[in-house]
Amino acid sequence: MRIPLDRQSKLPLYKQIDAYIRASIQSGSLPPDTRLPAARQLAADLGVNRITVENAYAELEADGLVYSRVGSGTYVLPPGPLQPLLQDAQGGSWPQWQQPASPDGLEPWKTAAVGMLPTSPDAGLLDFSGGIGDHRRFPVEDFRKVIQSVLRDDGAASLGYGDYRGYAPLRVTIAHVLASQGIQARPDNILITAGSQQALTLVAQLLLQPGDTVLVENPTYSGALELFRALRLRVVGIPMDERGMQVDGLEALLREFQPKMIYTIPNFHNPTGACLSGQRRRQLVALADRYNIPVLEDDYVGDLRYEGRALPALKALDPGGRVVYVSTFSKMLMPGLRVGFLVVEGPVYDRLVRLKHASDLATSSLVQRALQAYVTVGRYQAHLRRSAQLYRRRRDAMLLAIHRDLMPEGAGLSLPAEVRLHPPQGGFFIWLRLPGGLSSEELLPLACQEGMAFAPGGLFFPEGAGGCDCLRLNFAAHSPQEIEEGIRRLGRALKRLESCKRPNFDDT
Amino acid sequence: MRIPLDRQSKLPLYKQIDAYIRASIQSGSLPPDTRLPAARQLAADLGVNRITVENAYAELEADGLVYSRVGSGTYVLPPGPLQPLLQDAQGGSWPQWQQPASPDGLEPWKTAAVGMLPTSPDAGLLDFSGGIGDHRRFPVEDFRKVIQSVLRDDGAASLGYGDYRGYAPLRVTIAHVLASQGIQARPDNILITAGSQQALTLVAQLLLQPGDTVLVENPTYSGALELFRALRLRVVGIPMDERGMQVDGLEALLREFQPKMIYTIPNFHNPTGACLSGQRRRQLVALADRYNIPVLEDDYVGDLRYEGRALPALKALDPGGRVVYVSTFSKMLMPGLRVGFLVVEGPVYDRLVRLKHASDLATSSLVQRALQAYVTVGRYQAHLRRSAQLYRRRRDAMLLAIHRDLMPEGAGLSLPAEVRLHPPQGGFFIWLRLPGGLSSEELLPLACQEGMAFAPGGLFFPEGAGGCDCLRLNFAAHSPQEIEEGIRRLGRALKRLESCKRPNFDDT
Repeated sequence: MRIPLDRQSKLPLYKQIDAYIRASIQSGSLPPDTRLPAARQLAADLGVNRITVENAYAELEADGLVYSRVGSGTYVLPPGPLQPLLQDAQGGSWPQWQQPASPDGLEPWKTAAVGMLPTSPDAGLLDFSGGIGDHRRFPVEDFRKVIQSVLRDDGAASLGYGDYRGYAPLRVTIAHVLASQGIQARPDNILITAGSQQALTLVAQLLLQPGDTVLVENPTYSGALELFRALRLRVVGIPMDERGMQVDGLEALLREFQPKMIYTIPNFHNPTGACLSGQRRRQLVALADRYNIPVLEDDYVGDLRYEGRALPALKALDPGGRVVYVSTFSKMLMPGLRVGFLVVEGPVYDRLVRLKHASDLATSSLVQRALQAYVTVGRYQAHLRRSAQLYRRRRDAMLLAIHRDLMPEGAGLSLPAEVRLHPPQGGFFIWLRLPGGLSSEELLPLACQEGMAFAPGGLFFPEGAGGCDCLRLNFAAHSPQEIEEGIRRLGRALKRLESCKRPNFDDT
Repeated sequence: MRIPLDRQSKLPLYKQIDAYIRASIQSGSLPPDTRLPAARQLAADLGVNRITVENAYAELEADGLVYSRVGSGTYVLPPGPLQPLLQDAQGGSWPQWQQPASPDGLEPWKTAAVGMLPTSPDAGLLDFSGGIGDHRRFPVEDFRKVIQSVLRDDGAASLGYGDYRGYAPLRVTIAHVLASQGIQARPDNILITAGSQQALTLVAQLLLQPGDTVLVENPTYSGALELFRALRLRVVGIPMDERGMQVDGLEALLREFQPKMIYTIPNFHNPTGACLSGQRRRQLVALADRYNIPVLEDDYVGDLRYEGRALPALKALDPGGRVVYVSTFSKMLMPGLRVGFLVVEGPVYDRLVRLKHASDLATSSLVQRALQAYVTVGRYQAHLRRSAQLYRRRRDAMLLAIHRDLMPEGAGLSLPAEVRLHPPQGGFFIWLRLPGGLSSEELLPLACQEGMAFAPGGLFFPEGAGGCDCLRLNFAAHSPQEIEEGIRRLGRALKRLESCKRPNFDDT
């Protein structure tokens, strides 16, 4: 089998092999029951590692396109979805408990969220829907060296369970880095978690019961909404403007809904990019104190600031034990490490440690040790500075492209007030509003056809209905050239949507 | 500072440095405010890597024995627990929500569980309380090479979020390994989790509500009890005998308690080592089917069999979607990797994927890729065979030592019926019963003084009260020589406990 491979491509070799065979099966050029070449043979033919071919075959098998027989080889399956083997044998139906008694927020992902899901490999798609920085900037090579020395030096100790609160030296490092950001934290108030998402999970699970109310910014991080719905919480949105959550209206909401927690992203808010003003930060902490309600502060990327003065974290204003602070180093460095942390004082800390232990015993000790060896205050600050320079240029490139390609003559897309007045001073996101009547969920498939993707606004609204006219763009993951091309494609998709919505009018 | 280091010791160098300085501070030979040598200097003096010294300092700082000032150095703190900085400044009390409204199973660990907790380094303690194999047998060096090639070949792709269900080639490998064990599973019915503990968490969270009842073997795995309590479930025990759960009595319990789930460890049960008989397996699956109740099958180490015929997994007897199968490859290989998985068919699979995503987005992609590259069916089976040979000898050594040192002339400890009749045919554990009236919780501190530790039986009983006269020994983690010495120490501790309990009688 001759498969054309592009060794300069960003698409890994195994994905290229996968894509080629996949296309051959789907086109019928590899009919059912064809035996694929042995991995060793194909690897030799293509001049690649055998593992590369095996990975490609495994992807195909995982998707039900081929199957393998031990000792015999890999064969093409007939088209169409495989019938579940066991169900087939019985012809029976699923037991009753397999279905939820009531909707529990775990229904299948909406089609509209397609941009958030792992998609099949498509080298041409410029995907602005993600929530992380540019993976081409991840310090892979440095990290490779570090993980080597950890395994060499610590040996089996790096592969045991370790301290349930997290690797002690890493907690010390985190305390030092937080101190450099103005947050006073002791290592024994820090709990290491499987990414900041698990920190949110533990706090919400511990402090709230099904049916309890949580207040969130409207809109807010989709992963938090997903979590709160899965925990069967009632989610109530707090209106936002260009200075973040409208804290003035908060007291009325506290009285009306008697919430058990306030969840907030004060810095470079996801999805709007807004920053909570200093005055509002103080008001929020004071209100939480007066109403005896915990604040869950999600500072997922708060130290990635491109300009302007840093504002104190809510945690830094905390009179003690009112704010649970959640963050991660891995977001910007390497999200796949899945290491985040929370900081809290008081009795709730020990209970969170217990809940973490009950949930998954501990976070990978090896990865924690490697991260600890990699992250020093100096190195982290240097990485931050480099990232901030790079991403600021990309933000500017995207704002420019939006103004040029999407908003000619005042028509077309608009930047919502908060973005127009204050281009995001940090983080990853720009938030756009479509002209009246147009839906970002309808726009998304057209945009994908044009070769770009974004995150549709509906994902970020607690009630699930709002935000259909908004969309979120990640400017950090692509180069300025890619950003310009991506926004041009978005412009074409938007024109197509407008023309099919308003075929006979110029401007209504 | 001259610190004697033993480079042959099992205790890592940083732990030796830590222990030396710790002792010096506690004895007063390093008084408060003493400046410790700069890490670079001490490393040069001792001929070790600077990271080694920094790790030792970090451990000391994490435990509040020293503190560091950036640019200045590391200083000894005054003795006594550090006051929480923030609380101190305010002199205030904790907010009300910091305390649980009602006991929620997250109270501090009992002192009796000390053997299960991370303890300060003690090179002399022979610890038989753990739940894993011998960490000296972990294939660290092989794994180091594998993780290298993953980072080299896959680059940044290995550090992204990846597929939420788990890395596809790893799911294919798991399906192949399961097939070699008689379990038919498709990759798209497999969900990769953060260790098998997270698999238990997701299933219990999805299928049960607070107040619901779960049936478990009595005794059962302490981590499952901890989880079920944290989820505020009602836990009801099913009596066991030498053939595992007494399935005959199960129907009455199903009617009386209307449980929402049955949790079971059919192979090499934790803590008793018993195996569920083939007949009972069929009865259990049939009952679960008739009463429409899910079975959560925890097969944490089911393939580590030393003798006897393998019995079919409940999952292999499942008419389809009735059994959720949970296991892990990492338990025996490297527990610190935190990679487990579950297998289930039907609508509940997608909901579990959603819940996993809401809980922590994904499990470390890097670790999954490395595990996939390491685990081939052939290599895994070879590792199993070697481990089985090694651990069988250790089991025999422990049974022999128990008979010789603890049960002379029929007095002293007894093996409960299930162990006496059937020495555990696989797994890690031997379960012992103390002579009447003696408590394993009282025995444990004496055993620690003698230089050995075990897991006290009370940890494993749902009602929290039973099992005080039992204890669990892990025979897999130590060499036969260490086992003989450990059991001798246990014998001495037992004699001391007996003599203070029954000072004036020979046998009452």
